[in-house]
Amino acid sequence: MNDLASQVNFIKEIDKLKYIQRKTRLFNSDRHENDAEHSWHLAMMAIVLAGHANQAVDLLKVLKMVLIHDIVEIDAGDTFIYDSSKNHSNTAEELLAAKRIFGLLPEKQAAEFIAIWIEFEEGITPEAKFARSMDRFEPLLQNTSNNGGTWAEYNVGYQQVYDKKMVIKDGSAVVWDYAENLIEDSVKKGILKK
Amino acid sequence: MNDLASQVNFIKEIDKLKYIQRKTRLFNSDRHENDAEHSWHLAMMAIVLAGHANQAVDLLKVLKMVLIHDIVEIDAGDTFIYDSSKNHSNTAEELLAAKRIFGLLPEKQAAEFIAIWIEFEEGITPEAKFARSMDRFEPLLQNTSNNGGTWAEYNVGYQQVYDKKMVIKDGSAVVWDYAENLIEDSVKKGILKK
Repeated sequence: MNDLASQVNFIKEIDKLKYIQRKTRLFNSDRHENDAEHSWHLAMMAIVLAGHANQAVDLLKVLKMVLIHDIVEIDAGDTFIYDSSKNHSNTAEELLAAKRIFGLLPEKQAAEFIAIWIEFEEGITPEAKFARSMDRFEPLLQNTSNNGGTWAEYNVGYQQVYDKKMVIKDGSAVVWDYAENLIEDSVKKGILKK
Repeated sequence: MNDLASQVNFIKEIDKLKYIQRKTRLFNSDRHENDAEHSWHLAMMAIVLAGHANQAVDLLKVLKMVLIHDIVEIDAGDTFIYDSSKNHSNTAEELLAAKRIFGLLPEKQAAEFIAIWIEFEEGITPEAKFARSMDRFEPLLQNTSNNGGTWAEYNVGYQQVYDKKMVIKDGSAVVWDYAENLIEDSVKKGILKK
């Protein structure tokens, strides 16, 4: 198969991301968000907030990360961040998914996508830290707009939220300062239990 | 209001893009696509297909273009490409929408986003040409996967499709070659009327 035919196959395959439903809901809404919408929103957030990153970031790489970070869920499914029964790090199932789906692309591109996805999962580089901070910040904004959202729905308390959201600090101290205020405000408003 | 507060307001506002429904449907599906999903898919296509652009493109700029190109539709609504009763170029209504929505951002960022959106609409630079070619290529892939999709649904014929899709050629002769074959094949398969 030539490169373009492989690429078109990949483009068709990833359409399935639009069916992967997240636990979180849209802003001020009952409607669940899907992974494609979520990925678009993170990309927009990264463009808009890049100036607040702790370290200068290669924005193109950050965008690639957030745009592809959930594609493995086409095979592996969405894992709820507060589900303690599941391993949230780079699971074998997700790696298999990455190899199958990114493997539809021409070899060099497949290798690049897998490397970017692993870099995101590891969360070590400035780009990965910033991309991950966006991934944690969006549902915080959504839950506070939905009277507690998934916190209320799944009985998630202050400490769990605080611990998960602290990752934001590694990407942007400025965004973390805002996020921390939101968390404390949520307790005051009674939409997050301390 | 400080920069971050303005940026968060913008991030919340653009959530509405997830409710703007397009005429086209997902691949092999009855479900309509929304603008946020569409924008994510174009961004992925741009990353994957950038090597086929006629001229070298600044991929970061292309991504910004495709990610924001439909945000004006939050106010102005989706215009069906084969609706001849409506002006498809940069309408006054869309410019007003761009100014209101991008205007939520800090001044410098608002100006950058408006400029990028206008550059996309004008379609003159290599980045705009390539971004526009992605925007025309995606629904072609969708319609051929859906037995004609919107062509069948709205009685759109070969010449109309051919004329609209030829824009792809300005962005990528390689992708156009593939697209042209798809159009001719669609006629042979009887899902597009000549």
